Amino acid sequence: MIRHTVVFRLKHPANSAEEQAFLDAARILTKIPGVERFESLRQVSPKNDYKFGFSMEFADQAAYSGYNGHPDHVAFVRDRWVPEVAAFMEIDYVPMP
Amino acid sequence: MIRHTVVFRLKHPANSAEEQAFLDAARILTKIPGVERFESLRQVSPKNDYKFGFSMEFADQAAYSGYNGHPDHVAFVRDRWVPEVAAFMEIDYVPMP
Repeated sequence: MIRHTVVFRLKHPANSAEEQAFLDAARILTKIPGVERFESLRQVSPKNDYKFGFSMEFADQAAYSGYNGHPDHVAFVRDRWVPEVAAFMEIDYVPMP
Repeated sequence: MIRHTVVFRLKHPANSAEEQAFLDAARILTKIPGVERFESLRQVSPKNDYKFGFSMEFADQAAYSGYNGHPDHVAFVRDRWVPEVAAFMEIDYVPMP
């Protein structure tokens, strides 16, 4: 199992219609084959400057690669992520024994 | 639910006995009251420089605060975390509807 997470903040004002529209648009990612346990998260620690997170799990690297190359993911990154996200960090985890 | 996560890297060489000893010592955190779904994770994305993560969940802020102030957590931070961790970032999440 690979857990892919990304923590981010948007260029939009907090609680704006644009913010909600972005989060709504991201729902398309949940439908991509191989995506399991997709979560939309609010980042609440005062120890960093990010405001949101997405988390999803893949059975293996093949499923993760399939997601990365899927046209709906590519279009989301191009049309929404790049223009609307101010800063982000990707963190990917695998369980340890 | 609050999911508390911390991504980090150690001062120890990869796969060293010191690294394993740190990870073993962290198991004491799993026994602190209020800690649910504790996970020891390996960070595998090449897009950041962290190597490990811990993730745990708390039912509410009271449980999270109890963990933070618990003597076993305070001792772990003082005796292992501060001297052995080279860099880290805490990320806390709550689910969005």
